[in-house]
Amino acid sequence: MNVALSTAVTGVDFDAVTAKTREILKDNGFGVLTEIDMQATLKSKLGEEMERYLILGACNPPLAHRAVTVEKRIGVLLPCNVVVREDPQQPGTVLVEAMNPGLMAQVVDNPALAPIADEVSAKMRTVIDTLAGALRTT
Amino acid sequence: MNVALSTAVTGVDFDAVTAKTREILKDNGFGVLTEIDMQATLKSKLGEEMERYLILGACNPPLAHRAVTVEKRIGVLLPCNVVVREDPQQPGTVLVEAMNPGLMAQVVDNPALAPIADEVSAKMRTVIDTLAGALRTT
Repeated sequence: MNVALSTAVTGVDFDAVTAKTREILKDNGFGVLTEIDMQATLKSKLGEEMERYLILGACNPPLAHRAVTVEKRIGVLLPCNVVVREDPQQPGTVLVEAMNPGLMAQVVDNPALAPIADEVSAKMRTVIDTLAGALRTT
Repeated sequence: MNVALSTAVTGVDFDAVTAKTREILKDNGFGVLTEIDMQATLKSKLGEEMERYLILGACNPPLAHRAVTVEKRIGVLLPCNVVVREDPQQPGTVLVEAMNPGLMAQVVDNPALAPIADEVSAKMRTVIDTLAGALRTT
């Protein structure tokens, strides 16, 4: 199983990709509850340089509620991370990678999670596909 | 593989368990970068009631830096979540459950991650064991 659902965007500013990602997440019922700027964090804590790298913590409340109702331990894998990062191998390319929600059902031994993970996966796939479509035409 | 490293604390106030968890995480090099109050979030977004349930996003910067250096996609599984929650089956019991860092190496097909995941696992095991020891004597 792939660890991430992803797309690569070329020729669009990093901040514009991030803004569009947030907008499409919202359109699909995902709020962004957390944001970690890895570039800034590692610079501040260690003095290390890296490419731009954001981790957005996305949460669809009805699906999160169902997940936590059938499996209390699922919080260790919530929220569903969406990483927006510069591709160090391809200057000008921004990668958007969402945690594959299927992982939740794979690693937690609880069959009741499977249909919920499938629903989250379908929504997250829509987010990634919509983003790819929207930014190809920008 | 267990999805979480965990301990159960009885007879200690929820907020005191949370404060002690943060303190021991810090002593072991983990900063808490994010915090999600699931109880408040689901109440606010859906009007649903649940027990107290916090998701702390813990990050050990040197280990995160090493992980992201060998495997750029690892951000979909960062930070390492530590859940502090009331046990609905056992009133008065607070559960502390850390994501098993071994999952990172299990789900991402990159052997270079394994020794880093082992180090994070050892540190997180120390956090959970120290917490269990500290709160037994409170």
